[in-house]
Amino acid sequence: MSEEIKVQLTTKPGEKPDSNNLSFGKYFTDHMFIMDYHKDKGWYDPRIVPYAPIVIDPAAMVFHYGQAVFEGMKAYLTDSGKVLLFRPDQNMKRLNRSNDRLGIPEVDGEFVIEAIKKLIEVDKSWIPTEKGTSLYVRPFIIATEPCLGVRSSYTYQLMVILSPVGAYYSSGLEPVKINVESSYTRAVRGGIGFAKAAGNYAASIKAQENAKKEGYSQVLWLDAIEKKYIEEVGSMNIFFKIGGKVITPEINGSILEGVTRSSVLTLLQEWGVPVEERKLSIEEIYDAYKEGNLEEVFGTGTAAVISPVGELHWNEHTMEVNNGEIGELSQKLYDTITGLQSGHLQDTRNWTMTF
Amino acid sequence: MSEEIKVQLTTKPGEKPDSNNLSFGKYFTDHMFIMDYHKDKGWYDPRIVPYAPIVIDPAAMVFHYGQAVFEGMKAYLTDSGKVLLFRPDQNMKRLNRSNDRLGIPEVDGEFVIEAIKKLIEVDKSWIPTEKGTSLYVRPFIIATEPCLGVRSSYTYQLMVILSPVGAYYSSGLEPVKINVESSYTRAVRGGIGFAKAAGNYAASIKAQENAKKEGYSQVLWLDAIEKKYIEEVGSMNIFFKIGGKVITPEINGSILEGVTRSSVLTLLQEWGVPVEERKLSIEEIYDAYKEGNLEEVFGTGTAAVISPVGELHWNEHTMEVNNGEIGELSQKLYDTITGLQSGHLQDTRNWTMTF
Ligand SMILES: Cc1ncc(COP(=O)(O)O)c(C=O)c1O
Ligand SMILES: Cc1ncc(COP(=O)(O)O)c(C=O)c1O
Repeated sequence: MSEEIKVQLTTKPGEKPDSNNLSFGKYFTDHMFIMDYHKDKGWYDPRIVPYAPIVIDPAAMVFHYGQAVFEGMKAYLTDSGKVLLFRPDQNMKRLNRSNDRLGIPEVDGEFVIEAIKKLIEVDKSWIPTEKGTSLYVRPFIIATEPCLGVRSSYTYQLMVILSPVGAYYSSGLEPVKINVESSYTRAVRGGIGFAKAAGNYAASIKAQENAKKEGYSQVLWLDAIEKKYIEEVGSMNIFFKIGGKVITPEINGSILEGVTRSSVLTLLQEWGVPVEERKLSIEEIYDAYKEGNLEEVFGTGTAAVISPVGELHWNEHTMEVNNGEIGELSQKLYDTITGLQSGHLQDTRNWTMTF
Repeated sequence: MSEEIKVQLTTKPGEKPDSNNLSFGKYFTDHMFIMDYHKDKGWYDPRIVPYAPIVIDPAAMVFHYGQAVFEGMKAYLTDSGKVLLFRPDQNMKRLNRSNDRLGIPEVDGEFVIEAIKKLIEVDKSWIPTEKGTSLYVRPFIIATEPCLGVRSSYTYQLMVILSPVGAYYSSGLEPVKINVESSYTRAVRGGIGFAKAAGNYAASIKAQENAKKEGYSQVLWLDAIEKKYIEEVGSMNIFFKIGGKVITPEINGSILEGVTRSSVLTLLQEWGVPVEERKLSIEEIYDAYKEGNLEEVFGTGTAAVISPVGELHWNEHTMEVNNGEIGELSQKLYDTITGLQSGHLQDTRNWTMTF
């Protein structure tokens, strides 16, 4: 795509939120990016416009049949005042994998990255600079055709909105408590679990809220078929350090292939830490725990980067991990990835894009 | 709920479509019903307003996390000029089951039926009268809070839109060809398959479109765990008449509990036809076919009422059913249910609501 991105600036810039009190995805910047799709025209009319409610037919397919996908990444301001994006090409590749599964037309990933860069430039003053804060970038695509037949929509809208977000843990890394979900399931082979599709998250809310009520911050999903193998956490992939080895569930069609997961795997390999991507059952973890071999557990995802797990609850078993403290490896991974993201560590892997 | 439903009539009534060329869910009437929800207020401000695009924040949760459910039923005009709804109480019960699973607040089903009746009265002139046509009623609920945290929304909108729809089969009942889907899956136990949730349909589009390309009108889903047991068709439940007995998959958490399915079960029992609701494998069906015992296959759903299956395709096997013709029982069920819906047959079961 080579169409020029039109820019219409707001005449009423909003007030910026207090960067010490941002929480997640609650505030939005002054502008947004929009691009339309029609099956006879392809993607067209890319434009940056003031952030505002959209006008959409109540029969738009997204409301009825959930044809919607999204991505999530973060932009950081470096000490030299540049904007840094972390592996945005990976998000675009995943967006197109999601699109393919949901019957949504492919996008030109490079063009969308250009659009994101242009949008961030326009709203650059919104990037918070407090340690741990960043500008969350949310590209998403929705089916807009007003029609109640169940099929792929003929029209779509791709939008990008930006949200200044706080440090996931206000006081640095904090171990979380996680509950292994034994009745609800999130996804299954042959389904849409590997796609970042709206419907997957709707399916997860109830279990997530039940866990919250009981004091857990997230749910750890088991596979839907045998209710035995570890899948992933609410919005993170998960890693276990057992007897010196790091194990994470393999990509199997039902879990999301996280960008942070892939970065962690690369780093561990570079550091010479033995890593395995394979099926991993909850019993294996419990056995390791009983033998005193469950050394560290951590989640990986764009929002928290690395999230150490201090306690894992499975049916009647409570497994405390590393005395509820942050593991050495979790800390090192967190420091390295956030170091690369803030521009404090030099990027030797072509992971960052600055502008 | 007892709040009064405000009515604001359109000043620009639309043009009615040709009732011989309606297709499904393409045209909408002049008005719609809207009601808002806020977690501190409950459902409020029920109103009938001119049908128009809605204005909604791009961060509204429905676009990102798919918290959306819907219902579908039909309104018919009887010979005496009354409007007839078929078992709307069943749709409301199911709506609340869907709500519960998706973390959406309960609605007062009776109140929503009142709202639907009032809306249909306002747009009564839109009910088509050609044989087989009707007014499709689509209540749906979407999460409207602008927030990117993954949790239940604090605000929702319930809307009802109306669409004059054509006869599903322009020339009466027509047997369809169906493909048994062997790789994609629709839902699994512990998931949201039993709910009429937007995400389930997004997950089904790709398989559905692949089947269409190969000349099949719908996909027959197998269970996700053993890939063996019959679940349901795209938007229908399914019944098999084998050696004089009628068998349909039992309600198992992953299929939708169809209102038409339940009506068919009741009618068959009343008629003394042996019926079984149980697990049913595709091999059992193929065996019955080979033994010449596969007498009839039909789908049941609001859109088509009864849809005879003339051909079932499973991997390399093609099973022709009843010489590709409409079975006697399928025809009798179709005649009975459409007879009740049009008001031509007397309702002795309290299934219809006229006004
Ligand atoms: C279900 C799910 N799993 C895993 C992840 C982690 O992926 P990433 O590292 O790309 O953020 C996310 C989202 O961010 C997610 O939504
Ligand atoms: C997935 C699915 N199964 C079955 C049905 C049949 O249900 P009902 O008879 O209530 O229309 C529908 C919808 O109408 C459906 O969407």
